[in-house]
This record gives sequence, C-alpha cells and structure tokens, in this order.
Amino acid sequence: MPLRRVLVANRGEIAVRVVRACADEGIESVVAVSEADRDSRAALVADRAVCIGPASATSSYLDIPRVVTAALGTGCDAVHPGYGFLSERPELPEACADNGLVFVGPTADTIRRGGDKAAARQLAASLGIPVGAGSDTIADAVTARDVADRVGYPVVLKAAAGGGGRGMVLVESADAVESAFEGASREAQAAFGDGRMYLERFITRARHVEVQVLADTHGTVVHLGERDCSAQRRYQKLVEEAPATAVPLDVRRALREAAVELARALDYVGAGTVEFVVDAESGDYAFLEVNTRVQVEHPVTEMVTGIDIVRAQLQIAGGLPLPFSQDDVRLDGHAVEVRVNAEDPHRGFAPGPGTVSRWVEPVGGGLRIDTHCFGGYRIPPHYDSLLAKVIAHGPDREEALRRLDRGLRKLVVEGVPTTVPMLLAVIEAPEFRAGTHHTRWVEQELMPALTALLEAPEPAAAPA
Amino acid sequence: MPLRRVLVANRGEIAVRVVRACADEGIESVVAVSEADRDSRAALVADRAVCIGPASATSSYLDIPRVVTAALGTGCDAVHPGYGFLSERPELPEACADNGLVFVGPTADTIRRGGDKAAARQLAASLGIPVGAGSDTIADAVTARDVADRVGYPVVLKAAAGGGGRGMVLVESADAVESAFEGASREAQAAFGDGRMYLERFITRARHVEVQVLADTHGTVVHLGERDCSAQRRYQKLVEEAPATAVPLDVRRALREAAVELARALDYVGAGTVEFVVDAESGDYAFLEVNTRVQVEHPVTEMVTGIDIVRAQLQIAGGLPLPFSQDDVRLDGHAVEVRVNAEDPHRGFAPGPGTVSRWVEPVGGGLRIDTHCFGGYRIPPHYDSLLAKVIAHGPDREEALRRLDRGLRKLVVEGVPTTVPMLLAVIEAPEFRAGTHHTRWVEQELMPALTALLEAPEPAAAPA
Repeated sequence: MPLRRVLVANRGEIAVRVVRACADEGIESVVAVSEADRDSRAALVADRAVCIGPASATSSYLDIPRVVTAALGTGCDAVHPGYGFLSERPELPEACADNGLVFVGPTADTIRRGGDKAAARQLAASLGIPVGAGSDTIADAVTARDVADRVGYPVVLKAAAGGGGRGMVLVESADAVESAFEGASREAQAAFGDGRMYLERFITRARHVEVQVLADTHGTVVHLGERDCSAQRRYQKLVEEAPATAVPLDVRRALREAAVELARALDYVGAGTVEFVVDAESGDYAFLEVNTRVQVEHPVTEMVTGIDIVRAQLQIAGGLPLPFSQDDVRLDGHAVEVRVNAEDPHRGFAPGPGTVSRWVEPVGGGLRIDTHCFGGYRIPPHYDSLLAKVIAHGPDREEALRRLDRGLRKLVVEGVPTTVPMLLAVIEAPEFRAGTHHTRWVEQELMPALTALLEAPEPAAAPA
Repeated sequence: MPLRRVLVANRGEIAVRVVRACADEGIESVVAVSEADRDSRAALVADRAVCIGPASATSSYLDIPRVVTAALGTGCDAVHPGYGFLSERPELPEACADNGLVFVGPTADTIRRGGDKAAARQLAASLGIPVGAGSDTIADAVTARDVADRVGYPVVLKAAAGGGGRGMVLVESADAVESAFEGASREAQAAFGDGRMYLERFITRARHVEVQVLADTHGTVVHLGERDCSAQRRYQKLVEEAPATAVPLDVRRALREAAVELARALDYVGAGTVEFVVDAESGDYAFLEVNTRVQVEHPVTEMVTGIDIVRAQLQIAGGLPLPFSQDDVRLDGHAVEVRVNAEDPHRGFAPGPGTVSRWVEPVGGGLRIDTHCFGGYRIPPHYDSLLAKVIAHGPDREEALRRLDRGLRKLVVEGVPTTVPMLLAVIEAPEFRAGTHHTRWVEQELMPALTALLEAPEPAAAPA
C-alpha cells in the first residue's frame, strides 16, 4: 500500500532530502527533531515537526521507543531512518513491525546478515565473491596477532558492527597488533555496543569502489552502477564520483554482478550499497561490506542515472514495483560530490559550530547542493559537522570537476569555517585529476603539502 | 557564433535566472549592478559583478552608455536585458550593434514595430487578427473623447510606448475622458519619454491570455502554448498559469496561430509574447500588444513544456538553430505562478523594504522558487518589491494549485511583510478555483472581502 505519511527519523541534509522525496511522491512528512533541532531547516520544510527528546542523540535520534512513539503519535504509517543514527539497527524495523509501521529499508534479518561484517564476508565468499585475505570474527588479541602474521602486514582491524571508521585501525607490523586490537575493540564496544573484531590484509594502493543496488518486494534487483570513493581522510570519504572511470570496465562489471548476487542472497529490499576494495596495481578486488541504507554519496548515482534513489526507497516501501528494469538503467556522463564540513582546515580541522551568517548557493551549470543550511542557521554543537554536499554533473569527468570547482568557489558561507580550501586542493591535485589516487593518498601525500598551503596567509579558496 | 561571456543588464530574480541559464550553457556571466546591489545574490552567483552607477535606476540600469561600457570593459560579447529597465528600448540593441556586442533579443526594428502599441495593432489588423474596437494613436484629449464616444464605454486609455500598467487608465463614462487622457499622457511622458496614447473598448469580463513564441535566426518560429494571466490587481499580474484551460481549445489554437503569424510579420528573433484579451462571455478575442522580451511569468511555460526559455534566448543570440520544431513542443500538465512581493497587505500594500532576516524555501512537490533573496538580504528601497516567484507544476490545474498552496504556506520569510496572505486568498477563492475570474475580479470582488480578512488579528497565511 503506497505510503501516506512518513516519519523522518534523522536530521541535517538527509532529513531535508527525505522531506523533498516525500513531497515529490505526494507523501506527507513529519520530521522527528531533538530540542537542538527545533528550528532546523528540516523542521521548517516538513509538513510537521515533532520533538523526540533532548539534544543528546542517545536520548533522541538513537532512541528507538521515542522514534516509534513519535511515528504513532503523529499518525505516520512509515519511518525513514536516513543514514547513520538508527539506520542500520535491526531493532528499528523490528519495533516498526511490532507497531504496524513500515520501515523504509530492508528487513531486520537482512540488516543483521548484511551488517555483521564478518558474516557478510562469509556469505560473499560462499557466493564465490573474492573477500581478500583476512579472518572471520576474532576472539582475542593473541588470535588477532596469529591471523595477522598469517595474512601478512599491513592489516586493518575492523569492528564487526562498525561503520564510518570507528573501531577501525591500520596495523603496520606485528608488535602493534595486540594493543591495536584492544583499543579498537573498546572503541567498537562504546560506539556500537559490540566489541567483536575481524581483520583483513590492507591493500597499500587501494581504490574504494561501491555498487548501488535497488531491490523491490516483487523480486526485481537492479544495480545503478558504481561509485569511486577513494579520496578519504581518516576513513571518511571526502570526494565521491560515478562512474568509477579509473577502474577497468571489466572489473566494474564484475563488481556490479557480484553486488546484485549478494543482494539477492540477502533477500534485499530497498536501497543498499555493496562496498569493494580494488587493488590499483593488480586490478584484483575484494568484497568489503554491505551498507543497508541510503548513503551520503547517493546523489552522484542519481545524477548519472536520472533515478531518484530516495523516491525509489519510498515507492519500494509502499509495495510498488520498480518502474524500470536493469536494461533501462543508463549511465549518462560523470558526477562528483564533495562533503563540505564546518571545520577549520587552518586549525587542525577543529569543528566550528556557530551561526551561518550568510549562505548563498551557486546556480546552474550542472550543480546540485544538498544542504540543511540557510542564512542565520545556528549549527548545534551536538552532531556531525556536515554543512552541505556539493555535487556536479558533466558530460565527462573533466567537465564535472570543472563545474565542481566553480561550485565550491561560488558557494558563499560566512560565520563558520569550512573545509572548502582542502576540497579544492584535493580536486585540483594532479594525482586526483589523473585518477591515480588511492584511499591513503590524502593523508600520506596531499595533507603534508596542504598543511603548508593552509598555513599561508591567504586562504586557498579565494575566488579566482 | 555561440556566446562566450554575457553582461546581465538587470537585477533581482531575473538577473539570478539569467546567470543560471548562462552557467547551464557554459557561458560566463557578468552582472551589472548599481551601488545598491553590490551585495546582491546576482552579484554573488555571477562569475563577476561590475558596478555601473548609483542606486538611481536612471543613472545605472536605465543608462545605455554605462551598460555598453560595462559590457566592453569586462570583455563581454553579448548583453541580456532581462525584463523591464532597458529590455524594450530599441536604442540598446542599436548601441550594442554599434559596439560589436550581441543583444539577446530581437532587432531594434522589431522592438520599434512590436513595441509601438498602436503600430502593432495596425499590423495585427492587416494580418486579419481581431484587434477589438479602438483607435490608432490619438492626437489630443478632444479626439480621445470623440473616439471613445464612437467605440462605446467603458474604454481603456493606453500609452503607445507603455507597459506594466503605467500610462493606462480605465474610463467609465464620457465626462471623464479628457482629464484621464491628459493625466495618462503626462504619466506616459514621464515614464517612457513618449506621451502618445491610444484607446480600446474595455471588455468587462476579460481574460488576459498570452502566447509565448520563440524564433531563431534560421527562420524557425514556434509557439510554446499560452498563459492565462487574468488574476490582476492594478493592471499588475498576480497569478499566471499555463495552459489557459478556462479558454476553449479552439480559441487557444487561434491565438497560438495568430501569435506565430505576427512574430513572422515582425521578423521576430528570440523570445517574445503576444498578448490577447478574450471576452469570457462571448469567447471573442482581440490582440492587445507584443512584449519583445522574456516575461516575469515565463517559468509556467517552461514547466509545462520542459523547454528552458532563457537558455533558448542565449542559444538563439549565439546563432544556433532551435533544437526542436513545433511538433516537438508538448504541453504536460499544468503550472501556476504567483508573485510574492514585499508589501504589507495589512497596511494598504505599502512596500516593505528592510532586511530579510530568515528565508527558507520549501522543497520538492513540483515547486520551483525563482528568487534573489537569502537570509540576511537587505532589500534596497530603490526598486520594485518582488521577492520571489513561487511556481507549482502538477498533472492538472487542481493538483498544481494544491502544490502552490503548500509552497506558499511553507515559504518562510521573516523581517519583511509579504503578499502571501493575499495570494492565498486569490488561489483559494471559489471563482479562481472554478476559473470564472476575470481581469477586474481581484479588485472588484476579492479585495473588498479580503480587506476585512486582512484586518483580522490572525494572518490568513498561518500554517495549517
């Protein structure tokens, strides 16, 4: 049954994005806000806002009973979790089902099987998808060292329940494994309530490539091509693009097929992403993990396919069949996205909450700005520092980057520091332009050079 | 030769609109600003801004030598005049031609022949297009009375060089003609430097219907359907829609053909509009005038045709052929636009310059907002009071109006008064919903009722 009213259980730009998709679908939206977000743009643009608790996320955006109560109290028939917060917690779809609410996303079972990194690795391996040298869940620090010695250094330790770089640590040599295991497991326990770890051989020059899938309740599973998110800093994606033109087409085709196969094996419903690592030297690839939610970087896929992924989520959750088949999915041109954060690159990327005194977005020229900011917006200090995603589309990668460069230079933000100077340095760097960068390039090669640049008296982002 | 860099010789929302079209076309934009507009959104989003004079429009936006000098000084190869200001002054394309600049619009000759209301009436009549009872240019007040007596009252006196309601007056009876002529002619002389007048029989229940045409330099002339702009107040359009569903289709087809024929006779190049009056009772129609520029209400046509009229202007000015034929033009659904002004409907529509302390636009649901406003924008007191155009598209008129209603209620404007309460009253009125309104309906029927409503303690625009 098509959805009628959706509770948006998130904040920031993704809450605005979901409200927009609801309006496009003719669905009413109610935004669940913490006390710190009562005056947010999401609250203003939604049909209604409902306060679910104090600023602290654990008592609001991460509190399943409060979210479910808010949905019921406002007459919603569905809950959209956005990304982050509760989006990959199987307890939310369970609580929704218990209360007669539709969860906009896959089933609790799919989230459990896809979200447990070690279990997902096993499933991928059982389907014949390369998973790279590594382990299942590791019991303790001593076992970790044994496994690491066997697969060879460097290795990366990862939280089984993890995401966003938390509970994740790179280990270069044997003497550092045990303490790294203890620290990362503690961090994972604190962040996810789950300290289980696994490890993988770390590829020195790795590309991060991920495939977007959509699956409806009528058995149709399609991919929308892949994204390259190799420009990262501290395991956080800085720049994302589609398609992954730096990776050979035969490899990309294999990844797309593997993603669809894995989605089928997970009985996937909704929008999801299958992440892979590709060795930039050998072209070998390995499955990394499944993200059972919409991702921050979904707009680049929307811009090259013309398919609205969030509207598709709502249609699928309403029981509608996908209105297109795999053959209808065409990739047109190239799209690049950067995440603009309120951080001061001149002062060690310290988060800069405060009031956005002026916010003026560039217009036209293949640009799209996804944001919750506006002139006069007071950024609460309680959440992440994402201000906006600036996305550019062009007939090819070079033109998309030229348009993105214009977009970043013409974005007017006053009152808070932004990472625009760093983002410009990334997209202007010869390695990035040539597509020879890898997941550690920003930290290993760009940042040292950039630090000198950022400490110069004139900011790098001065308009041309 | 495709354009490379365009001087935008205008301000406000249309300047932002032209910058967007330039960016979409890969053309650089330079915005000519008065001292009062140095910090405008147009200045921020353009590739560059250049100051052309003080706040007074006569010494900046209306000063042809300053505009031409600014274009030459910034290396532009073309000038886009927007609407209003210099857009219908034949001296601007002449000055452009003299200085090797492309004028984005028709030739000086076309502007002269189309812009002289009496001459255009003669031309239309010569093509067999009904022009209604009325006159050619009238020499003096005594002649005006003779002609008015002959065509019958009420009559409307119009400035031959006029536009926007200036130099225009409705005369109900013989004893008022002579003084009305003198006053309107003086007003026309002051506003346009041309006091010549003509008159027409006034249709009591008139619909204002206008046809959008596009003509390239390769001989192609197409129409993009028509717009209905019958909801007016003091000769200013309040609401515009496309297509004109209240007018019988055979009449609309006749208007479209007449518009194309007239454009051909005028050797038209660029975007233009042919305006007609349709008698709501008899269905008879008559030619009113030609507007040789892009119009405020062009977005409704863009939303039902999918054709970007401002981009088409730039392509045509660059010598490119229109990339479609008349057969390719399809009308999809219905679109409605309202003009939101910074005026206080609770205090006799007094203009309210000031600072827009908060500006948050609604998202999704078939809405488009064309504006130059942003949170923190200080509205200069020197120009018109247009804040934004809110445009809604839907599969039919009822759904478009429902979406527009949502758009107006969700538009957040703080710091200045707006006409949103009046606009809501217009689009919610039974006569407007039924499409039985006419050009004097707002003033004669709606405003008296509205005045009581607006004086009530609670504003009519309170969110539902």
